Amino acid sequence: MRAAVYQGPGEIAVEEVPKPDIESPEDAVIRVTHTAVCGSDLWFYRGDSDREAGSRVGHEPMGIVEEVGDDVTSVAPGDRVIAPFAISCGECEFCRQGLYTSCVEDESWGSEANGGGQGEYVKCPFADGTLVRVPDRYADDEDVLESLLPLTDVMGTGHHAAVSAGVGEGDTAVVVGDGAVGLCGVLAAQRLGAERIIAMGHHEDRLELAAEFGATDTISARGDDAIERARDLTHGGANHVMECVGAASAMDSAIAIARPGGTVGYVGVPYGVEDGGLDVFTMFSDNITIRGGVAPVRAYAEELMADVLQGTLDPSPIFTKTVDLDGVPEGYAAMDDREAIKVLVKA
Amino acid sequence: MRAAVYQGPGEIAVEEVPKPDIESPEDAVIRVTHTAVCGSDLWFYRGDSDREAGSRVGHEPMGIVEEVGDDVTSVAPGDRVIAPFAISCGECEFCRQGLYTSCVEDESWGSEANGGGQGEYVKCPFADGTLVRVPDRYADDEDVLESLLPLTDVMGTGHHAAVSAGVGEGDTAVVVGDGAVGLCGVLAAQRLGAERIIAMGHHEDRLELAAEFGATDTISARGDDAIERARDLTHGGANHVMECVGAASAMDSAIAIARPGGTVGYVGVPYGVEDGGLDVFTMFSDNITIRGGVAPVRAYAEELMADVLQGTLDPSPIFTKTVDLDGVPEGYAAMDDREAIKVLVKA
Repeated sequence: MRAAVYQGPGEIAVEEVPKPDIESPEDAVIRVTHTAVCGSDLWFYRGDSDREAGSRVGHEPMGIVEEVGDDVTSVAPGDRVIAPFAISCGECEFCRQGLYTSCVEDESWGSEANGGGQGEYVKCPFADGTLVRVPDRYADDEDVLESLLPLTDVMGTGHHAAVSAGVGEGDTAVVVGDGAVGLCGVLAAQRLGAERIIAMGHHEDRLELAAEFGATDTISARGDDAIERARDLTHGGANHVMECVGAASAMDSAIAIARPGGTVGYVGVPYGVEDGGLDVFTMFSDNITIRGGVAPVRAYAEELMADVLQGTLDPSPIFTKTVDLDGVPEGYAAMDDREAIKVLVKA
Repeated sequence: MRAAVYQGPGEIAVEEVPKPDIESPEDAVIRVTHTAVCGSDLWFYRGDSDREAGSRVGHEPMGIVEEVGDDVTSVAPGDRVIAPFAISCGECEFCRQGLYTSCVEDESWGSEANGGGQGEYVKCPFADGTLVRVPDRYADDEDVLESLLPLTDVMGTGHHAAVSAGVGEGDTAVVVGDGAVGLCGVLAAQRLGAERIIAMGHHEDRLELAAEFGATDTISARGDDAIERARDLTHGGANHVMECVGAASAMDSAIAIARPGGTVGYVGVPYGVEDGGLDVFTMFSDNITIRGGVAPVRAYAEELMADVLQGTLDPSPIFTKTVDLDGVPEGYAAMDDREAIKVLVKA
């Protein structure tokens, strides 16, 4: 089969690799029909994080189940499934409480045995604990499928930011970051009933999409200027701040924007935090809670899918560029150049 | 009147200073009968934090109301009162929601006008919003008074750690730190129903007191060894960790001891966090919540006082040394040398 392979910073190639096989009775092999390039893929692509050359990439697959192991009961060949970015056994202490990202099995899509999420096929270990079946009546509806694909990662992650920040009916929420996760965070805040949603970023086109997604205010600024404007709009800070970037500067902006007693829900994979650390003094003096982390999107899949299927949630506009499998390298480049918010791959 | 005055690192003097006067109709002047030296006083005493030479010190006064301004309605001359370490107006947005430490008035005991908490008299601006009256029948019961005094700071702070960490009935809690706050944290966790309380520190005498206060296990170790033992005792980490020190190393220990999905309740005034920062990567990957900050002890005073008065809560054993006002410099030295856990001052 063909799959995207990481060659080194700035280099992704689509190559012929072995097709993954059922190895355990809990496995499923999926023929990938849709997948995506993630903002977090850019860190190794840019050389900001280490990754072994020759490793498989991608972690947001959707497709048709091709084959299942003997113990798999929740999906069958022919089923349309989406696969959260984290593989989860479904049976350990953490999976049982919905914290699928802390699954003790510690499997990932990118291993050679699993084949990566950006290829023709992918193997899912722990199929029953991981995969989410799409009801048959929607299984070939292309519009629905493109709206469901973000549930594998960014939509669940934006939702985790909102839930972690405690966003509820009538609240004011500030969303720090206008990438795909921040935009999904706006959708999530609106879905949870926030009355005022202030989206912060510095890309006009993305902030326009934030407004379409339900942001009542947008702030296009950086650093102290952005903080000041958010604090002005909220008369001194918001009780619910969603950090959707991960950079130390974004975390500190989020803390600075939080009202005393407020909560920062954070979901951006941390980077740059080793040097500066968080502004613990402000956290301390203002009793600001920091809650969140890597999003257990599996826990949110059914709830969000129900809304997509009934037509009240549609994150698909974050896909501003579509490529085929051969176009994956071009997709990485487009996201790296910020030409695309998020790239959809139709395999 | 006479009061303790900070002279510079290592130097506290008891000097003649002007007695504070009623200046606003919301003021009260209190004749201090009991006060204390706080672990946080040691930071300027040790030169670890800046403080102006000549400034008044102390922030945990208890005493008898001497005089009140015309608008004061909740206390009257002759009343026995305790005064939380943070002054609060009782009327602003934050006071009304119980976050008294974020009071917009930003007053402190240590100002020259207020006179400091370690002197013969102290002025309380916003008496109605700050002072807590002790019922008359207990107003001269020395045992009760010594048990109530910690409610001005360390007992409320330990309670805030427990509340912030989400400690409840049947829980396992780890308390990081065996100082006065950590010990009060053990009392608080027990009071909130924790079934297992693991106290961590490195002073045998303090850990013995922790056991008397309800700790079911004690760990006398530092660094990685302490973390490993706590993780062993909890089979991989506790859902509720109370950070009662403030040092960056203690925060990182607390994060390392938290179970995935768990919460660190932190109340130690941060120090050393500028350099290293928190271990945000572990927080992120394990979805660990960081909640807490400077404790709004005023919010907890009535609830904790009720338990002291009915005899089910007694933090007074943390006072292992008693001095009079002239003995305040000796009290600082004893705490600095770790000869005393906490020093009671009978003025």
